[in-house]
Amino acid sequence: MSRLLLNCDIGESYGAWTMGLDAEVMPFIDCANIACGFHASEPLTMRRTVALAVEHGVRIGAHPAYPDLAGFGRRSMACSPDEIEAMLLYQIGALDGICRAQGTRVSYVKPHGALYNDMMREPAKLRAVMRAVAAYDRGLPLMLMATRDDRAPQAMADELGLQLWFEAFADRAYDANGMLLARSLPGAVHHGAETIVAQAMALARGEALSASDGSALYLRADTLCVHGDNAASVAAVQRIRAALQSLPT
Amino acid sequence: MSRLLLNCDIGESYGAWTMGLDAEVMPFIDCANIACGFHASEPLTMRRTVALAVEHGVRIGAHPAYPDLAGFGRRSMACSPDEIEAMLLYQIGALDGICRAQGTRVSYVKPHGALYNDMMREPAKLRAVMRAVAAYDRGLPLMLMATRDDRAPQAMADELGLQLWFEAFADRAYDANGMLLARSLPGAVHHGAETIVAQAMALARGEALSASDGSALYLRADTLCVHGDNAASVAAVQRIRAALQSLPT
Amino acid sequence: MSRLLLNCDIGESYGAWTMGLDAEVMPFIDCANIACGFHASEPLTMRRTVALAVEHGVRIGAHPAYPDLAGFGRRSMACSPDEIEAMLLYQIGALDGICRAQGTRVSYVKPHGALYNDMMREPAKLRAVMRAVAAYDRGLPLMLMATRDDRAPQAMADELGLQLWFEAFADRAYDANGMLLARSLPGAVHHGAETIVAQAMALARGEALSASDGSALYLRADTLCVHGDNAASVAAVQRIRAALQSLPT
Amino acid sequence: MSRLLLNCDIGESYGAWTMGLDAEVMPFIDCANIACGFHASEPLTMRRTVALAVEHGVRIGAHPAYPDLAGFGRRSMACSPDEIEAMLLYQIGALDGICRAQGTRVSYVKPHGALYNDMMREPAKLRAVMRAVAAYDRGLPLMLMATRDDRAPQAMADELGLQLWFEAFADRAYDANGMLLARSLPGAVHHGAETIVAQAMALARGEALSASDGSALYLRADTLCVHGDNAASVAAVQRIRAALQSLPT
Repeated sequence: MSRLLLNCDIGESYGAWTMGLDAEVMPFIDCANIACGFHASEPLTMRRTVALAVEHGVRIGAHPAYPDLAGFGRRSMACSPDEIEAMLLYQIGALDGICRAQGTRVSYVKPHGALYNDMMREPAKLRAVMRAVAAYDRGLPLMLMATRDDRAPQAMADELGLQLWFEAFADRAYDANGMLLARSLPGAVHHGAETIVAQAMALARGEALSASDGSALYLRADTLCVHGDNAASVAAVQRIRAALQSLPT
Repeated sequence: MSRLLLNCDIGESYGAWTMGLDAEVMPFIDCANIACGFHASEPLTMRRTVALAVEHGVRIGAHPAYPDLAGFGRRSMACSPDEIEAMLLYQIGALDGICRAQGTRVSYVKPHGALYNDMMREPAKLRAVMRAVAAYDRGLPLMLMATRDDRAPQAMADELGLQLWFEAFADRAYDANGMLLARSLPGAVHHGAETIVAQAMALARGEALSASDGSALYLRADTLCVHGDNAASVAAVQRIRAALQSLPT
Repeated sequence: MSRLLLNCDIGESYGAWTMGLDAEVMPFIDCANIACGFHASEPLTMRRTVALAVEHGVRIGAHPAYPDLAGFGRRSMACSPDEIEAMLLYQIGALDGICRAQGTRVSYVKPHGALYNDMMREPAKLRAVMRAVAAYDRGLPLMLMATRDDRAPQAMADELGLQLWFEAFADRAYDANGMLLARSLPGAVHHGAETIVAQAMALARGEALSASDGSALYLRADTLCVHGDNAASVAAVQRIRAALQSLPT
Repeated sequence: MSRLLLNCDIGESYGAWTMGLDAEVMPFIDCANIACGFHASEPLTMRRTVALAVEHGVRIGAHPAYPDLAGFGRRSMACSPDEIEAMLLYQIGALDGICRAQGTRVSYVKPHGALYNDMMREPAKLRAVMRAVAAYDRGLPLMLMATRDDRAPQAMADELGLQLWFEAFADRAYDANGMLLARSLPGAVHHGAETIVAQAMALARGEALSASDGSALYLRADTLCVHGDNAASVAAVQRIRAALQSLPT
């Protein structure tokens, strides 16, 4: 990849309930992480979401989760690696089925919510996720969080022949290990537009961020996680997009 | 196809609950209609079921249903054609995802329970089913019920370029229209092994059955629906299999 | 009852998804039909909704539905009378459990969506609903739709010793049988505030409405169904409430 | 209580899937822990299960769980105390609604599976469970596991005015802390009928068990957990019942 891709959680409505400004944010992103029915969405919403991504030429990623609609996939569940592997295959396949009918395909995978957090903390769960993606299609990159030291996940991926896309955040502060500062701490979330754009640009240029302890933090960022929850976050995405376009590719 | 394929509903356990003698019946069937998580099964059970089918060289069919675990997909639901089309793509894709990871693929589709009954009665639902299968992969045959006059579904399938596999029953009596006699009527279900095998052989040879009004009933049977619920039904499948093998191919 | 009660569907959020302006409409209604987890809501939302109703001194009604979150309880399901009876007891009891913990109780029942429509059309389903409410607590009135001739449901309720609350609509036109005019027909939904208030006042005074064929339609209206979906519907409720308060009780 | 009550998980079928020999074990137990629809069962099964308990004069307990049918409530979930409190009220109320319609009531509560294990380990979850039971009805005892030192849960219960029923196991070995020996360790599960009956009798008489380190272990056992999964476990229950009946009350 020659530039920083913008990825965004998309298609998180569910039946009669609407969430997110999908139509508003879609024109400004590169990668749509589309919910697969376990934490949000159902087949009809998935179909409409895929159509919207196709219309805007946006890459479609599977956004699989723990089976927990009521908790929006945000509650960790003690699922076994076998269960995780099987539920990923199920969800990737389901979204891919809907893609096929519209002449497109799933082109990467990004786990959602508690599953994402758990795989970053528990190597057995990360391996289960990687095994599923590799078993489905070795050509699909897996998105996971960039940290100060990406060697462990990279080694695991290499063993399975899997490609990784590391993602970073423009609107969050990082601690000395390159982990996101807990939201409960002061300064954890950037609110100012200039700060957010500046952090995005630093990541795009491969420059160091300043971690919460003041140390320089270099992150390998293949993609930037952005949000389409509300008008303010969509405006931030537009600003980031405009700034990135000014960069030489 | 040169001979009558035996198809059987398989993989209808769910989590901690077991149903069906899958391992016992699998060696004697040609086609396994595998539940896709909407009326039965979940990803881990689907994975084990696919492994069992692969082990025995049995063709894998998607067995999609209405989203109704508590009702085992037997309760008709007023889903729109769009909803049906999307939920079929989802379920076929989900099973296919699990198949891919084991080096195999879904090779036909047979709707389950109330969805099967509804599509036989309501052309709009049948068309939704056909559109989903054709959109997923025109090479996948759709199984549906053979009746006295198959011209309407055949015309619809021809229009979509879809292949049909008509199925018949060896253990059920038919009425004059080639519909199954309601279970509430006397003589609706054959219990004698000889009667069942004789009906299977007649269907395999293309001979007429005797409908409940005494008329001759010719059914186009590409496949025969058999059951693996219990020891008696597995024994019946073995007998039918043995009898069919005595036929010239 | 000395006056027309305003009832409104409330508590139809679900986990991370929000629906309805509950806090805005609650001050103006008499009866909150609270979702019980089958078409919307989950235990935590139910708890918050009960707290809101208690805060405003609003009567709490159970709003049970078919088990269909993805379809918001709007898709008819072929559930048996026994299934309907059991699922109503389950839902009424669940909401009542949450009420008890806050020092209040369920005080009436109004089925939701497709279940409501089905019970108005199918006497076996209406009887199942009535049997459940009577078995739970004969003191709980059942809300159902006022039509030109309420004798059949009234006779069924009398047999079970059950009280009925008939509801009417201020924003919908009626046909000659006192059924709601289908939304697809012109003039089915009133949009003008004056028309809506006038129809509410006519119902409150026991005056005739004008049916779509021009005939006079007298409805027994114990309660009026109002909506809290958006700002416009909340404004309509406020106007109706103000107008009703001008009536002598 | 003057004697050791036998409690058993009951009503864990789900829709078309059957589990447990409920009818066979019911005559020999005192307390039926009835599934409430979150890990097993649905309204119709709950209704039949309550009828069976009523027929045999068995006390009905609510057996609430995490919302995880596919995992049978055995997977720990990171639910907040507020969520746990609300989901318990929901489930207790739902079962109580079904009880009311049959002239009976829920008379105690025993959490299921992962929720049971979590509350024994995490005081915040135990408090959430206790708060729910106390808020529903202070007269309902809560069943939890007897350990060597029951002072902490007893103090928490005293604070809320809640009654506890401690349960012990006749077929499991205990470690020095009075916790169940992990199933993976040798000798964790007793298989011999005589050993099981002897341990039940020791618990009933208030005699010490021998912990895995050889120390004497006194457990406060108000109730004994028995199983109705299969013929062997039902036979064990019968033997325990017969032995207990020989004791003076």
